[in-house]
Amino acid sequence: MSYRAPVRDIRFSLEEIAALDSVRATGAFPEFSGDLTGAILEEAAKLCNDVIAPLNWPSDQQGCTLKDGEVKTPDGFPAAYAKFVEGGWQGLQFGTEHGGMGLPRALGCALMEMLQSASMSFGLGPMLSFGAIEALIAHGSDEQRALYLPKIISGEWSATMNLTEPQAGSDVGALRTKAEPNGDGSWAVSGQKIFITWGEHDCAENIIHLVLARTPDSPAGTKGISLFLVPKFIPDESGNPGKRNGVKAIGLEHKMGIHGSPTCTMEYANATGWLIGEENRGMAAMFTMMNSARLNVGVQGVGIAERAYQQAFEFAKERRQGRAPGAEGPAPHAIIDHPDVRRMLSLMKAKIEAARAICFHAAVEGDLAEHHGDEDEAAWSRRREELLIPVAKAWSTDLGVEVASLGVQIHGGMGFIEETGAAQHYRDARIAPIYEGTNGIQAIDLSGRKLSMEGGLAFAELIEDIRQTVEDCETSSNPALPELAARLAPAVDALEEAVQWMASADMEDRLAGSTAFLKLTGDVTGGWLLCVGAVAAQRRLKEAEGDAGFAENRIALAGIYAETVLAAAPGLMGEIRMGAAPLFEPGLAMLESA
Amino acid sequence: MSYRAPVRDIRFSLEEIAALDSVRATGAFPEFSGDLTGAILEEAAKLCNDVIAPLNWPSDQQGCTLKDGEVKTPDGFPAAYAKFVEGGWQGLQFGTEHGGMGLPRALGCALMEMLQSASMSFGLGPMLSFGAIEALIAHGSDEQRALYLPKIISGEWSATMNLTEPQAGSDVGALRTKAEPNGDGSWAVSGQKIFITWGEHDCAENIIHLVLARTPDSPAGTKGISLFLVPKFIPDESGNPGKRNGVKAIGLEHKMGIHGSPTCTMEYANATGWLIGEENRGMAAMFTMMNSARLNVGVQGVGIAERAYQQAFEFAKERRQGRAPGAEGPAPHAIIDHPDVRRMLSLMKAKIEAARAICFHAAVEGDLAEHHGDEDEAAWSRRREELLIPVAKAWSTDLGVEVASLGVQIHGGMGFIEETGAAQHYRDARIAPIYEGTNGIQAIDLSGRKLSMEGGLAFAELIEDIRQTVEDCETSSNPALPELAARLAPAVDALEEAVQWMASADMEDRLAGSTAFLKLTGDVTGGWLLCVGAVAAQRRLKEAEGDAGFAENRIALAGIYAETVLAAAPGLMGEIRMGAAPLFEPGLAMLESA
Repeated sequence: MSYRAPVRDIRFSLEEIAALDSVRATGAFPEFSGDLTGAILEEAAKLCNDVIAPLNWPSDQQGCTLKDGEVKTPDGFPAAYAKFVEGGWQGLQFGTEHGGMGLPRALGCALMEMLQSASMSFGLGPMLSFGAIEALIAHGSDEQRALYLPKIISGEWSATMNLTEPQAGSDVGALRTKAEPNGDGSWAVSGQKIFITWGEHDCAENIIHLVLARTPDSPAGTKGISLFLVPKFIPDESGNPGKRNGVKAIGLEHKMGIHGSPTCTMEYANATGWLIGEENRGMAAMFTMMNSARLNVGVQGVGIAERAYQQAFEFAKERRQGRAPGAEGPAPHAIIDHPDVRRMLSLMKAKIEAARAICFHAAVEGDLAEHHGDEDEAAWSRRREELLIPVAKAWSTDLGVEVASLGVQIHGGMGFIEETGAAQHYRDARIAPIYEGTNGIQAIDLSGRKLSMEGGLAFAELIEDIRQTVEDCETSSNPALPELAARLAPAVDALEEAVQWMASADMEDRLAGSTAFLKLTGDVTGGWLLCVGAVAAQRRLKEAEGDAGFAENRIALAGIYAETVLAAAPGLMGEIRMGAAPLFEPGLAMLESA
Repeated sequence: MSYRAPVRDIRFSLEEIAALDSVRATGAFPEFSGDLTGAILEEAAKLCNDVIAPLNWPSDQQGCTLKDGEVKTPDGFPAAYAKFVEGGWQGLQFGTEHGGMGLPRALGCALMEMLQSASMSFGLGPMLSFGAIEALIAHGSDEQRALYLPKIISGEWSATMNLTEPQAGSDVGALRTKAEPNGDGSWAVSGQKIFITWGEHDCAENIIHLVLARTPDSPAGTKGISLFLVPKFIPDESGNPGKRNGVKAIGLEHKMGIHGSPTCTMEYANATGWLIGEENRGMAAMFTMMNSARLNVGVQGVGIAERAYQQAFEFAKERRQGRAPGAEGPAPHAIIDHPDVRRMLSLMKAKIEAARAICFHAAVEGDLAEHHGDEDEAAWSRRREELLIPVAKAWSTDLGVEVASLGVQIHGGMGFIEETGAAQHYRDARIAPIYEGTNGIQAIDLSGRKLSMEGGLAFAELIEDIRQTVEDCETSSNPALPELAARLAPAVDALEEAVQWMASADMEDRLAGSTAFLKLTGDVTGGWLLCVGAVAAQRRLKEAEGDAGFAENRIALAGIYAETVLAAAPGLMGEIRMGAAPLFEPGLAMLESA
């Protein structure tokens, strides 16, 4: 059940597919050399491999406990968190002016993948802090930033996001938590929040809650929501944790997975809070951090898939059963020599590479959108990032579930036994398609706002890029690449057709086809990026740069993806174009089991 | 979390799709009228709805315990089992000469679905006894049948199957358990068996273990395996449980799901056993019961999917979030009015109907194979049954996982909380693609033996049947049916092409494409059977027979399946024809995470 961070895979994806160099070229990160990338990834890998990963299974078995409003996390979590803080990892992608490392977000994304592979439960703590830091940078007052950012960026304090209430899940506008002015610039926050990840724990000395609430006489729905900062301990005059605030954990959820992550019910009883940004503009602040939060959850899908994959791969090399055609040596042969097992592993691996590439591409474009000196280029990157975010979130997390499920299957009966560890990944992976906007919500975002923005420009640009790669593959001297093009070309045709259909469809029809549309977008974009990687690998081969075997394997993996996922992609057109009428016309009776 | 057996759906599938009447027409079941079908199903539904289903969630939480070799099952299981015995349900499909009800296996299949929906953990006990009864009927001596069958058929005694050992899972031939002659006609059985479902429990007064073992000097591999009957208590002279035998449970597995089902490690220490059938012919006896065991596991996939579906459907009607386009009344609207949720539910329902139809079709053909007076007809039915068994097992159990996962998704955050119950279905469902021959083994069976038998006759007959239904739909006066035909026709073309490709492919290539080939076979066969149902529904509409709304819904569900699953089916050709070379040529390095 060990984990080795796939540093070389990650670097190839970052550098050869997502073009990390373009971030360096902006000049916004003067300290950030190619050598530093390697060093940072290797250091992060050590922490994840050696410190965090070994805690994953025991933490699942032990879980968290709540007593007198205090949560005890699993054994080893506080010590591992201390190591995380010691390495300064929480600040990787934040400015040196707040004590961060000042590196690109794309590297933060790579760190995030390793953290999530090592332990989803553990990784959620830092993930939530990342989001809060972004909100404070963008919307906090100077005073708030000075007081809180250094502590959260160092990891000494952690942070949470408080949105959900029992009646307000996907429908955030339905929330009821209240904030009333105290008269001294602070607010009294009261209400109950559920599903608060790392809402209470014993790893950091203070916890800073970002809480969505309504002020008196605020408008109904999302337009009347404000964002508040509510610290567990109110900082004293020297900025240290002071008086205990009126917020506490009153319950822990009994979940199917991520047992090591405390999912709290939080009670706010006239807790002292401070408004972040403007009144009634809480949703805007949420949107600021939404892109990176959703991307991070997508990366979580990649991370859990990679972990499940590594475990299945190791098992398949060891476990011997039956006679495999073509295998050398006496039977029983390792099950990895059986074609059907090899097929599962190859598909898992190829799809993980595709999802990783989608996430890193989105992250690099996010960096460019923020830092590119050319306004048009920055706008292009912003559009690409915006388009990719819902795909990265939904496609990668569905993939996490699929790969974790295949991981169980490869283990046979042992996969169903908890001690093996494969089952934990299957249980843990299942949350990611749900939180941070369900995958259905992501599909609505993609087929609605993202499809429409600037008259469909983002999709047009994506399709143009894919067609360019079709051409690059067609004209390659390596005959494997035109074969990739032969699969990518009809797939991008289907995507273009789907975009046109969606753009002219009624809202209900569009919504009915949105999930299949997102899947098609992900299938094709993932395949495209693997082809981009294959083109880069071919260049390496030609220039005798690096490990030839590794480069050949990138091309081979793209081929497997092309023959399976890309070949099947146009088949999604039926579901995309089905429309809402067949779902609604027969009425509810059609759905009643009778 | 309640369950209502879908008696009308089941009857429609049995009678209008699987043609249960043809079993009546054999004359082998003189007592078996149409009225009786309804009465039996309604009675079985009562037991499952009211007695067993309420135990499902508590039994998951409580699990089983082992102390001093004795297993305590969850509270309520022994009492529910007593009700099951009282109703005579264990004997539903077995001859009246042994105390059974003498009804067709197809009805047993319907009972099995309800039992599994009510509780997979509970349903496994009776399922294992079914298999042992079949083995004894086919291979037991007169004395063995007289002594054991009435007790197992009544349910007073239960039975188990003991195949797996740590080194012998899919590779049964690797087993090492030994049997040595005692000199008095009995044998001394010694060894350890793992993953023994209901191997020890407190519901029946005796447990009859069927055990695969090797006799001295037996040939290696599967040709040297014999089947033994080893009772927990050796029957005394009057046939009652007597001396405790040398077999006991020494461990219980800590599993991801089916916590109410005791999965035991069994130790045989010179346990007294009796040979069933001939020495070294144990695998043949296994094959006798394999068809129905695999079908029953397929039905388990249907059962867990139906349960997960019902729960998600009820939740989606109650839970209100956001504004749904086209919904009436003030927001928030029920999430079932949101197109994407409606899409999930519609697809779940349509696919469940397809899987149910595949299973019932296989069961009816099994009955006909056994009882049809005409030898050619019986042979035709046997071929069809044989072809469908791996599809029923693998396709339906993959579906069980998929539907249970969608069930979690529809619940949103609540789906991940154990108390909601949706998570249990997701955990329970995961075992079915693994046991009774992994789904990979099923795919090998389908693309190997089943494809080849009698020169490919079984597939040729299936394709012929499907083409007939295409024609029936094309010529219907209801315009919805030619639309079904327009999707079914290219799907069956793809199936035919795939069959031809597989039939002429090298063994390794065939194995590499086998899972995709099974999926295509299931997708197309399921769609075909829904179209058969649509044709029957259209006949009912025309003849104003029965509930028009119900008939219209059958056509609408077939339409949803056609636009989604059938439309996508030809897209599987790429994976089917990929071959083994891309998986093996690059060597293991391609799969190494680096």
